[in-house]
Amino acid sequence: MTQINHSYTELQGSYLFSEIAKRRTKFMQENPNAQIISLGIGDVTRGLPDAIVKAMHAAVDELARPDSFRGYGPEQGYDFLIQAIIDNDYKARGIDIQTNEVFVSDGSKCDVGNIQEIFSQDAVIAVQDPVYPVYVDTNVMAGRSGRFNKEKGQYENIVYLPCSAENNFTPSLPEGRKVDLIYLCYPNNPTGMTLSKAELKRWVDFAKANDAIILYDSAYEAFIQEKDVPRSIYEIEGAKEVAIEFRSFSKTAGFTGVRCAYTVVPRELKAKDADGNVVTVADLWNRRHTTKFNGVSYVTQRGAEAVFSPEGKEQIRSIIDYYMTNAGIIRDGLKSLGLQVFGGVNAPYIWLKTPNGLDSWAFFDKLLSEANIVGTPGVGFGQSGQGYFRLTAFGSRENTEKAVERITKLSL
Amino acid sequence: MTQINHSYTELQGSYLFSEIAKRRTKFMQENPNAQIISLGIGDVTRGLPDAIVKAMHAAVDELARPDSFRGYGPEQGYDFLIQAIIDNDYKARGIDIQTNEVFVSDGSKCDVGNIQEIFSQDAVIAVQDPVYPVYVDTNVMAGRSGRFNKEKGQYENIVYLPCSAENNFTPSLPEGRKVDLIYLCYPNNPTGMTLSKAELKRWVDFAKANDAIILYDSAYEAFIQEKDVPRSIYEIEGAKEVAIEFRSFSKTAGFTGVRCAYTVVPRELKAKDADGNVVTVADLWNRRHTTKFNGVSYVTQRGAEAVFSPEGKEQIRSIIDYYMTNAGIIRDGLKSLGLQVFGGVNAPYIWLKTPNGLDSWAFFDKLLSEANIVGTPGVGFGQSGQGYFRLTAFGSRENTEKAVERITKLSL
Repeated sequence: MTQINHSYTELQGSYLFSEIAKRRTKFMQENPNAQIISLGIGDVTRGLPDAIVKAMHAAVDELARPDSFRGYGPEQGYDFLIQAIIDNDYKARGIDIQTNEVFVSDGSKCDVGNIQEIFSQDAVIAVQDPVYPVYVDTNVMAGRSGRFNKEKGQYENIVYLPCSAENNFTPSLPEGRKVDLIYLCYPNNPTGMTLSKAELKRWVDFAKANDAIILYDSAYEAFIQEKDVPRSIYEIEGAKEVAIEFRSFSKTAGFTGVRCAYTVVPRELKAKDADGNVVTVADLWNRRHTTKFNGVSYVTQRGAEAVFSPEGKEQIRSIIDYYMTNAGIIRDGLKSLGLQVFGGVNAPYIWLKTPNGLDSWAFFDKLLSEANIVGTPGVGFGQSGQGYFRLTAFGSRENTEKAVERITKLSL
Repeated sequence: MTQINHSYTELQGSYLFSEIAKRRTKFMQENPNAQIISLGIGDVTRGLPDAIVKAMHAAVDELARPDSFRGYGPEQGYDFLIQAIIDNDYKARGIDIQTNEVFVSDGSKCDVGNIQEIFSQDAVIAVQDPVYPVYVDTNVMAGRSGRFNKEKGQYENIVYLPCSAENNFTPSLPEGRKVDLIYLCYPNNPTGMTLSKAELKRWVDFAKANDAIILYDSAYEAFIQEKDVPRSIYEIEGAKEVAIEFRSFSKTAGFTGVRCAYTVVPRELKAKDADGNVVTVADLWNRRHTTKFNGVSYVTQRGAEAVFSPEGKEQIRSIIDYYMTNAGIIRDGLKSLGLQVFGGVNAPYIWLKTPNGLDSWAFFDKLLSEANIVGTPGVGFGQSGQGYFRLTAFGSRENTEKAVERITKLSL
């Protein structure tokens, strides 16, 4: 028999969401009349903005006619979209990004999952804890993680950077071990917290001083409300020499089912091959992207372009405001109960300390059985998430208000 | 500096299409009035069929409204599309495929590129020569290829299966070396040739007897016209135990810019881990697919579903007939000149032996300068393609006829 990639056997089951589904199903079977409200999964719910809908219809019509039909496009994305990204997301903030530094893709999950491929098998990775599981799992698959230590609930060769109320969710710089790739996610999923410019600068300086590369996942950038919070890592001087940035249209523009994202790999970012030769990282990513990917749907790319039109911007702003109002309702509601609440100011996630020292799953069960609300146990994102719980602001206003009302009536 | 995946340094430049573009540009600069006809790239040109256009419009409208909005879908694809695939592409031919064996993706290039990841780093791969470069390049990136031998123009650890007029483009079974993964592409790109059922059965039997897995790329299945040519490898008894099949909507339904494909991994297909435990390959692929991919655009999936509607089938048939009529025109035209011509019967590619022993690039230059036609030099697909040339049937009728007329006037 053909042999498999043995590293796959080190993957831990995707326990979190299947366990949530299991408990939810059991509860519904036992309580068929319960009106469950889900504030669990980080998926948007509002309709696509009109400007995007119009652009997608127009693109479909273009494809219908031989004279305007488009087949294979550039794997890196069409110029019209790349230029709109550069002008709006970078140039408008004084950041100079070139067209050959932007790579349009069908999702940030793919990009943050695939990026590790272009680096050495021996690279040591560091991740925040709690963390979006894809960073870890894709490195396990690549054989970088070492064995899973069941007692610790962590992989032996991965450097974990704990984020909790104790350090205000600002991880300490890695110490005692040389790290090569540092995954940072801001605004953070799952905690909803952000870094200030000064805090982010510490990471850029660290990466420069320690020959590390920062993989900066900024999928929730559109939700930033406060002025001092950096919207791009490239606002920090020198970041282009040490950072790759990932952005997504998923949460910004309701594209979770439409599929579009992009990755910026500055040409200043260098690495070395095994012989010590200096290599431009963007060239490697370009080679990977063009060899294993064939571009994003033309219809999707026209929809993404419309995100940057005056109407698109206005409509998106109103949807983001809708979700962030939800976030405020959840945040204020929980705070008024005396709960310790984080996030929800510059991100659609509210991260709460469970009351009375309940562990994450015990609080899940309490919320489900007593308030019929489904959320996400923090421990599902890593050991430092134990005793925390995530609620999302992506529900409807009605459900969000109802959920908070129900929680208010709980005995906590 | 962070170290890169050193295997990338073994990749050879994607010489073929950039060299074609270079020579074309140079010719156009020197001959600004030349009316160039491109029969080079394998990209479709007709508009999307009406049934698909309608379905995509309807899907965009669904996404516009909160009550019918869809966010993240199942990474493996929506049931409505998987069921349509099973019913039409398999059940209708007496092949039993289950829903958990079909994985919808955004393109066969991605699937055939990614599939190697789930297998061992030590796996020995065999490819047809000439070959679609993605099979080779993705294995080079994964470190399986060994060094590139410049003299031979081949990688040391890859087993090449020559296909030429001498063996009627039917490769011999690998001999003298244990192979683990065999990439077969039928109808073949670039040669346009096919295998009969009896010939394909030899490969299935070989894989069974030799513990190998066949990666069967069937992206051009829709172009098959002859009865004895298998449309799926699963028409061969026992193939489910040894083969993964890749199918695409790209050429079938004009989806090169819309992006949809699927991969079938039968549950009967087993492999082993490093400890000798038997593993179901579909479980590994499912884990990869759900970890590194987030599903195909909902709009695209509704479009793909419409491919299987009665109107969709009829409209697609008419487009395929259009391209295959082009193929016949090219084939007959070249044959009438006494050229040795292959393919073009069950595939949109015509593979011709260059006249007078010209090498592939010399013929390219002759065709460009004397007939203003751009085609693809066979040697670009591998050493066994030397002295051959590829023309595609994807042009307009007018250009196809004009091209043949121009070739007829050449002194060959």
